[in-house]
Amino acid sequence: MLTALKKETPPPRCIGLITDFGLADPYVGQVKGVLAKKAPNCRVVDISHDVVPFNVAQAGFFLAASYEHFPEDAVILSVVDPGVGTNRSIVCLKIDERVLIAPDNGLLGLALKNAWSADIRAYDLSAAMDAPKKVSHTFHGRDIFAPLAAWLALGGAPEGLGTEMDPTDLVSRKWNQPTISPGRATGHVLHIDRFGNCVLNLEAESLGTPTKLQMVSPAGGELAYATTYSDMPEGAPGLLEGSQGFLEIAVNQRSAARKFGLSMNDTIELTWEA
Amino acid sequence: MLTALKKETPPPRCIGLITDFGLADPYVGQVKGVLAKKAPNCRVVDISHDVVPFNVAQAGFFLAASYEHFPEDAVILSVVDPGVGTNRSIVCLKIDERVLIAPDNGLLGLALKNAWSADIRAYDLSAAMDAPKKVSHTFHGRDIFAPLAAWLALGGAPEGLGTEMDPTDLVSRKWNQPTISPGRATGHVLHIDRFGNCVLNLEAESLGTPTKLQMVSPAGGELAYATTYSDMPEGAPGLLEGSQGFLEIAVNQRSAARKFGLSMNDTIELTWEA
Amino acid sequence: MLTALKKETPPPRCIGLITDFGLADPYVGQVKGVLAKKAPNCRVVDISHDVVPFNVAQAGFFLAASYEHFPEDAVILSVVDPGVGTNRSIVCLKIDERVLIAPDNGLLGLALKNAWSADIRAYDLSAAMDAPKKVSHTFHGRDIFAPLAAWLALGGAPEGLGTEMDPTDLVSRKWNQPTISPGRATGHVLHIDRFGNCVLNLEAESLGTPTKLQMVSPAGGELAYATTYSDMPEGAPGLLEGSQGFLEIAVNQRSAARKFGLSMNDTIELTWEA
Repeated sequence: MLTALKKETPPPRCIGLITDFGLADPYVGQVKGVLAKKAPNCRVVDISHDVVPFNVAQAGFFLAASYEHFPEDAVILSVVDPGVGTNRSIVCLKIDERVLIAPDNGLLGLALKNAWSADIRAYDLSAAMDAPKKVSHTFHGRDIFAPLAAWLALGGAPEGLGTEMDPTDLVSRKWNQPTISPGRATGHVLHIDRFGNCVLNLEAESLGTPTKLQMVSPAGGELAYATTYSDMPEGAPGLLEGSQGFLEIAVNQRSAARKFGLSMNDTIELTWEA
Repeated sequence: MLTALKKETPPPRCIGLITDFGLADPYVGQVKGVLAKKAPNCRVVDISHDVVPFNVAQAGFFLAASYEHFPEDAVILSVVDPGVGTNRSIVCLKIDERVLIAPDNGLLGLALKNAWSADIRAYDLSAAMDAPKKVSHTFHGRDIFAPLAAWLALGGAPEGLGTEMDPTDLVSRKWNQPTISPGRATGHVLHIDRFGNCVLNLEAESLGTPTKLQMVSPAGGELAYATTYSDMPEGAPGLLEGSQGFLEIAVNQRSAARKFGLSMNDTIELTWEA
Repeated sequence: MLTALKKETPPPRCIGLITDFGLADPYVGQVKGVLAKKAPNCRVVDISHDVVPFNVAQAGFFLAASYEHFPEDAVILSVVDPGVGTNRSIVCLKIDERVLIAPDNGLLGLALKNAWSADIRAYDLSAAMDAPKKVSHTFHGRDIFAPLAAWLALGGAPEGLGTEMDPTDLVSRKWNQPTISPGRATGHVLHIDRFGNCVLNLEAESLGTPTKLQMVSPAGGELAYATTYSDMPEGAPGLLEGSQGFLEIAVNQRSAARKFGLSMNDTIELTWEA
């Protein structure tokens, strides 16, 4: 249950949103209507609503790449939820003062794995599911997650609603666990952006500065290693540190996805001179 | 004419938006620029701008399904307006304290038909069309509807601008009038969402709890009757009460539109054991 | 460097955004996260994020058509930046109290050419590029332009950051320079909207009220000349003053782009009886 908050609560927080609802249907608008009703002074910022339906890995990347750019006390709500209607939990990860809410399906894993903070806590907030009255017609994003995000944004404390849990007990998926050994790494294509850059689940700088870098699977080819686009040889493919905190396979001003025939969820093998 | 409002007006209201302008063109941005100029403290929430161009029925569904999730004094502006430039009226429906603005072309019909409130009023606000100076280059959404919505959101009263009318005198269209008799219903596909669910103009629960339910036209097939997705047999089609307040033809985790070859505006016939 | 601003700054300004980042990737969300962090009370309004990647001319049209509809002290940030990573400048155009920020690549040209104000100033703000700490992983929209827009929106003065320059020294492109002589004009298709209207870089009313108007290239055909859609003969093509401040080739309720086979960036020749 979300208990009413006292008046002397801290100033309203910013709420960031990640969903697979799309923008054509009225679903995101209804979520925001509820936020406007329950947290009228909180600023709401869309991160993306175009997560491929049910693609938890992509949502996990959007979250891990974005939350640090938000205000230090932001609440970020991510709803990509193939398990809606089952007894999956609702959880939050508190990294310093930021609160990341999601279903417990692996979505929080990349943010957890790559967080640099010493102050990371996790809570099971499934008690929020007790709140809605018309349970039978429930749209969880609107009727459970949005009131929960509003309540936290108004100053509600996770420990006041749920039980603390060990962050390592959050559900984890294989895209949260790339393998890196000297000279070889296996990763996963988390996202292909509108420019055709293929984002991997390999943290920037996690390979050091590899030389004679090759992609050996699913397509073969040499890759330059670059920090920014302007460092990349014109038209040549590369592995790029980029701006999102994760390594990207990229081709300057062209689509790397098309060049190599890569798709989301592909497994990628890289080798280099160790 | 929108007369200047006194200082002691109530706190600014939330403004919801439904249009067929899309998000690629700068039209919605210009509408919001005007709202930012005229109602700087009002929160603006997009419901959808991807109504199929000129599809008034779909916009009517988005409105009817969404307005109750907004703050109790919200102003919702819907602009899908095939009759722009003709002498169609501008009207608003006041349901309790919420104000729904639209061209008088049937868009408000579903919201009116399904409203549970005892306090429903309608107003002809066409006088707002007197306001813009450069009539010849007018973009009604930006130059007429947006200032009107801002004026209402700042506390302007509909009765101060226009004349009250009988809500039943609002333009009504066939999608506002499904036919339901014992064992048989004829409806209209108002919307197909990104998951392929086909929303009908049949209010949730309007069929009771039908048994041996069949779709007989335009495609044939048995439908389970379910309250939520998790109640639906895996992969089997069903008629779902859903979360939008209207019955939906759905297939769990698949596209019902593709399975049955349904399109928006299709007429649907259902039968069941009465 | 963006120096800290004193407390007695004016009330926060509205920030408008134009980019080619799209809404599916998390890039726009990260830009807005930074704005929420640095300018928490400023209202942010999307104009469009669906500029065709690297299409500076289209962005220039979106800006020129939109900025006047924003509050009189709005800050409009436009980031379409094929030259990112090169030594292109960052500039702003101050038209009365509105501030338009962009890379110096011609994007501001249409707004400059068509501005009616007597008070137009330009500034080189490239000093803002000194601000970010992690230069090597910079996403300029998020790490340079967004903090700059926030700083200006909070009351920062362009003259406090950069050097004033002659507005005519801004980079100009051919789409900023249509040619009009008696009876003949050559223009450029800046944008094709969702309805198929083709916007030209010819200011509304710049041809007077032409009679016997013809498009002679790239497709041939007579065009009616009209002020609004409702003036256009049903189904017949026309040249329309429209609502965006620029002439549009349009067909009432149909796609002019499809009818004439027009694409963005096409050069258009028009003739009429002088």
